[in-house]
Amino acid sequence: MSAIDLTLIGIGTGNPEHLTLQAIRAMNAQDMILIPRKGPGKADLAELRRAICDEVLTGKGTRIVEFDLPVRDERTADYRQRVDDWHDEIAGAWKAAMAEYPEASRIALLVWGDPSLYDSTLRIAARLRPAPRVAVIPGITSLQALTATHAIPINEIGAPFLVTTGRRLRNEGWPVGVDTLAVMLDGDCAFTALDPAGLHIWWGAYVGMAEEITCAGPLADVSERIVRMRAEARERHGWIMDIYILRRH
Amino acid sequence: MSAIDLTLIGIGTGNPEHLTLQAIRAMNAQDMILIPRKGPGKADLAELRRAICDEVLTGKGTRIVEFDLPVRDERTADYRQRVDDWHDEIAGAWKAAMAEYPEASRIALLVWGDPSLYDSTLRIAARLRPAPRVAVIPGITSLQALTATHAIPINEIGAPFLVTTGRRLRNEGWPVGVDTLAVMLDGDCAFTALDPAGLHIWWGAYVGMAEEITCAGPLADVSERIVRMRAEARERHGWIMDIYILRRH
Ligand SMILES: C[S@@+](CC[C@H](N)C(=O)[O-])C[C@H]1O[C@@H](n2cnc3c(N)ncnc32)[C@H](O)[C@@H]1O
Ligand SMILES: C[S@@+](CC[C@H](N)C(=O)[O-])C[C@H]1O[C@@H](n2cnc3c(N)ncnc32)[C@H](O)[C@@H]1O
Repeated sequence: MSAIDLTLIGIGTGNPEHLTLQAIRAMNAQDMILIPRKGPGKADLAELRRAICDEVLTGKGTRIVEFDLPVRDERTADYRQRVDDWHDEIAGAWKAAMAEYPEASRIALLVWGDPSLYDSTLRIAARLRPAPRVAVIPGITSLQALTATHAIPINEIGAPFLVTTGRRLRNEGWPVGVDTLAVMLDGDCAFTALDPAGLHIWWGAYVGMAEEITCAGPLADVSERIVRMRAEARERHGWIMDIYILRRH
Repeated sequence: MSAIDLTLIGIGTGNPEHLTLQAIRAMNAQDMILIPRKGPGKADLAELRRAICDEVLTGKGTRIVEFDLPVRDERTADYRQRVDDWHDEIAGAWKAAMAEYPEASRIALLVWGDPSLYDSTLRIAARLRPAPRVAVIPGITSLQALTATHAIPINEIGAPFLVTTGRRLRNEGWPVGVDTLAVMLDGDCAFTALDPAGLHIWWGAYVGMAEEITCAGPLADVSERIVRMRAEARERHGWIMDIYILRRH
């Protein structure tokens, strides 16, 4: 059995026009594209991936295979162990899906945003045996979709910025030595736990998508508004993904 | 005189296939695209921008106007003042170029990588009077081209990372509270000033381009090799752009 070529293709954050020419060419070069299903009530990104395939696949050579994404076992107490187990299970689900067309040797996954950024697809790929040859096609990240919609630079001139998670910001507070933060994976509005004095926020949910909503201003002025907008949107759509930049003056 | 629509279009880092469908559509919607010329001996990115225009513009409606990028006056002692003056001059050069077709109201600049990341185009646009309506189209950054070619995630699971410059790293050393750094704008191999123990580096120059070269490994083992590769490549091409990720274990 020869090694498969596994390509992780960044597709951007929900705007089908985020696709690069490289991503489109790579999709058309595959024997199989795997699409995860998360189940009802979750971000329905399977449908979006299906629509992207419909739109850009020009030949009949590429099979689309869907599989149910295993659910993380929240009873496992240790966070790291829980994630590890889950990744093992996902690798198993890929294997099962791939077995539907054993002749396929070029197989791709469509990764939300960019495969390098807070995404586990590369780590799951590393679990496959025999080890595949892995290639990555970059995609527009949610951070770039956020700065684009606000038409702002992420950094001040020559200055650094930190990309972090809501959990870190909430647990550890404002990090040392940096005036700009980009915060992702925040289910809980960690910005509300900060002293807002001197802070500016640029926030967005569903950035790049038809559902996009944004808000920006001094944190003291807009914090409550964002909490409200977020709750309403989450209620309306059943799911939400949001991201923000904080800058200290 | 009605305000112009100024669109900053991220074009990726030298691979014409980094272009997104959104960028291609935006380019075709313009009356004018401005292309800066840096002069001989500099990164010849004007030619690449011209080639991209040739390739993706389908109609005859878009005029390409080239202008000479003003040179920064290195005699101005204060760094901030020097950059400010230079941005003023560039805004003036845009104005002069735009005056060649005063009827053009949709005008774009093709920005290397993504307009949000260590790029001054947004700041220069803010100097124009009357103020244009500014829109931004995201593009693949050099950081994403780097992680893609090495097929690595930028972050460890749930962990933050800092994006910074060579100058900062050299002057301030390894920043507090973070184990992953992405370093850009480093003309001087700032990684050589660090204690390499426990550090891993993923380096690349001309990432995404035909000239791409990369190197990765424990910093202690590959540091000298990167310094040598960089010097040789710079000598051969007359210019270099490089970027790297450092991770502490
Ligand atoms: C698991 S990470 C994946 C990030 C993705 N790989 C990227 O490049 O953007 C999910 C987090 O990304 C952010 N995110 C992804 N898509 C988003 C969108 N369309 N709007 C706002 N935030 C988004 C949110 O912070 C979310 O919690
Ligand atoms: C003025 S900044 C512009 C960054 C750009 N906006 C982006 O999104 O990548 C220039 C720096 O970006 C990095 N860079 C840009 N293009 C690159 C390439 N093709 N290969 C390696 N580094 C690159 C280098 O660190 C360089 O010093």
